[in-house]
Amino acid sequence: MLYREAGVDIDAMDAAKRRIAGIARSTYGPQVLSEVGLFGSLCRVPKLRDPVLVASCDGVGTKLVVARLCGRYDTVGIDIVNHSVNDILTLGARPLFFLDYIAHSKLAPQALLEIVQGLGKACRENGCSLVGGETAMMPDIYRPRDFDLAGFIVGTVERRRIVDATRISPGDAVIGIPSSGLHTNGYSLARRVLFDKAGLKVGSRVKGLARPLGEELLRPHRSYLKPVSPLLARVHALAHITGGGFYDNIARLLPHEVSVVIHKSSWRPLAIFRLIQRLGDVPDEEMYRTFNMGMGMVLLVAPKQVKGILGSIPGSRAIGKAVRGTFGVSVI
Amino acid sequence: MLYREAGVDIDAMDAAKRRIAGIARSTYGPQVLSEVGLFGSLCRVPKLRDPVLVASCDGVGTKLVVARLCGRYDTVGIDIVNHSVNDILTLGARPLFFLDYIAHSKLAPQALLEIVQGLGKACRENGCSLVGGETAMMPDIYRPRDFDLAGFIVGTVERRRIVDATRISPGDAVIGIPSSGLHTNGYSLARRVLFDKAGLKVGSRVKGLARPLGEELLRPHRSYLKPVSPLLARVHALAHITGGGFYDNIARLLPHEVSVVIHKSSWRPLAIFRLIQRLGDVPDEEMYRTFNMGMGMVLLVAPKQVKGILGSIPGSRAIGKAVRGTFGVSVI
Repeated sequence: MLYREAGVDIDAMDAAKRRIAGIARSTYGPQVLSEVGLFGSLCRVPKLRDPVLVASCDGVGTKLVVARLCGRYDTVGIDIVNHSVNDILTLGARPLFFLDYIAHSKLAPQALLEIVQGLGKACRENGCSLVGGETAMMPDIYRPRDFDLAGFIVGTVERRRIVDATRISPGDAVIGIPSSGLHTNGYSLARRVLFDKAGLKVGSRVKGLARPLGEELLRPHRSYLKPVSPLLARVHALAHITGGGFYDNIARLLPHEVSVVIHKSSWRPLAIFRLIQRLGDVPDEEMYRTFNMGMGMVLLVAPKQVKGILGSIPGSRAIGKAVRGTFGVSVI
Repeated sequence: MLYREAGVDIDAMDAAKRRIAGIARSTYGPQVLSEVGLFGSLCRVPKLRDPVLVASCDGVGTKLVVARLCGRYDTVGIDIVNHSVNDILTLGARPLFFLDYIAHSKLAPQALLEIVQGLGKACRENGCSLVGGETAMMPDIYRPRDFDLAGFIVGTVERRRIVDATRISPGDAVIGIPSSGLHTNGYSLARRVLFDKAGLKVGSRVKGLARPLGEELLRPHRSYLKPVSPLLARVHALAHITGGGFYDNIARLLPHEVSVVIHKSSWRPLAIFRLIQRLGDVPDEEMYRTFNMGMGMVLLVAPKQVKGILGSIPGSRAIGKAVRGTFGVSVI
C-alpha cells in the first residue's frame, strides 16, 4: 500500500506548492532572509527603539461556504489578510509577515492557487510578506469540496506608540469608517436567512444590490491600514467590528465606568444588511451584535480630533459617544 | 431569527474562551505585554544584537481522527506545539510565542479545554507563551465530532547563530535522535492499513505494543528543544523528519552536489512502524518516505563532533553520511 493510495498525493501537492512559492516570493520585503521551503521562515525585526511584536490569528469562517457555492476562490485570501491587518492595526501595528493555513480534501490545484493569489495580492497591498504556510490535505476530515483557511499575522509597533485603550474617556467621540460588506463575520446567520429561509441562490439578482447575491456576499474585507495609520497618534482606541458586532468589539476596550452609546440613525446600513434583516425578521440588537452594518472600523477620539479625522477619511462619520456608566455598549 | 438559531452559540463559545484564557496566562513569559482578549497579542523582542524572527505554521493532520476515535483530546495540543518548536529549532531558534487555530462544529467545551490544556502544557515545557488563538465554530464545514487544529509559532535567533545548512560537506555524519512514535505524520497511511485493511480498533491489543493501538498512535510528538539546543553551535544542519520522511526533509537542506546516504540497518524501527509495514505490505522506500521510523530529528555534523553529540543525547546514533553526489537522499 502506498501513501497516495491512502488519499494523499504528495506529488500533486508539491506541484501546487512550487507555484505558491513564486507568489510568496513576490511579497517579500527586505527583512525576509529565508528562501521558501525551509522548516521555518526568517525575518529581521524592523529597526525600532523598543520593538513590540503584535500577533493575531483568525479564520475566514463560513464565508468559505459562499466561495465554494460561487466556485470562486480569489477573494477569501484577501479577506483573511485584511482581517488580520485590521486586527493588529487596532494596537498601532504595521504588518510584517503573514502565514496561511489551508486545509482541504480535494480542492483543485487551480482553486488552491487562486486562494494564494488572493493572499499574495493583499499582502503586497499591505506591505506584508507572505513568508510561509501549510497546505494540508485531509480527505477524512473535509468533504470533497470543503476547505478551511486561517491566517496568522505578525506586525510591529514602537512600544511607546502602542494604542492604549485606557485613554478612552467619557466625552470621546465614536467615529465609524465604512465597510465593504459583511467582511468576514456573520455568514452563518446570513446564509441561513438568505439561502435556507428565503430560498435565494448565489446567482440571484435582488433589488437594491448592485451585483448577484453571491458576489455581494463575497466582497472582500477592506483593509484600514492606509486611511488609519497616519492618524494613530490621534486616536484613543480602535475597534475592529468583527464577530460580536458593535457590542463585544467595543466593550472589550472600555475602561472601568466608561460606556459607549452608538446612534444607529447616524448612518444607513448597507443594502445587504437591510436585506438580511428584512428577510430574516432579525431584531435590531441581533443585527448590531452580529454584523458591522456598514461600519467596519470604529475609532474613539477626543472631541477636538473629530473634524480633522472626518475630513481625512472618506465616508467616515461620528456615530456615537463615550459616556460615564457601566452598561457597556448600547445601540439606540 | 437569532444568531444562535443559525448554529453559532456565542455565549457557550465565550464561556470556553474564558477558561482557555486562564491556561494561556499560565504560559506567559515576561516579554508578553498584553492581557488576553485584545485584537492582537503584544510581545517584546528578546534582547539580541541582531534578532531574527523564525516563524512556522503547521497542522496536526489526521492524527486528529485517531484522537476523535479514542475520545481523547489532551495530546494533540502537545503534538502541534512540539512539532512547531522542532521546526524552528532546525534554524537555531528558541520559541517565543504560539497561537492556535481550532475549528470545529460541536466539540464539547470539555474537549476544547483538553486541547488547550495540551497546548498550555507543551508551551510551558518549551518556555513558549501561548499568546492567542482562534476557536471557530463552523457547523457547515465540520461534521459534528470533527475538528481541525493548527498552530503558528514565532521564535528568535541571533542572526549570526542561524543554523545554515550550506555548511553541510561530504563526509559529514548523520545522527538520528529517537522519536516517540509517528509524531504528527503519516496517519492517513497508518489508519488505512491498521483500521481499514487490518480491521484493528483503537482499543486493540497488539503483540509488541506496550499499550492499546489508539494510545500508541496518540503518543505525543517529542520536543527536541532541550537535548538539541545546547549543541546548535556544533551542527551543520538539522532535519525534522515530518511529512515526506527521510527523503524530502533531508533533501531540502542539501547544498548542490552533496547527497546523503541513510543506513537503515543502523537502528531498529519502533514496533508501531514494523506493524504498519507488515500489515500493509508497505515497501521500504514508502515507509522511509512517509514515517520517521523511530528517528524524529536528524543532525548533520562534522565527523569530529560525532562522539561528543552521541554521548550527550540518549538514544542518538550515527545513521548515515553525507557524500559527494546529486542523487539527493538514499536509504539503503
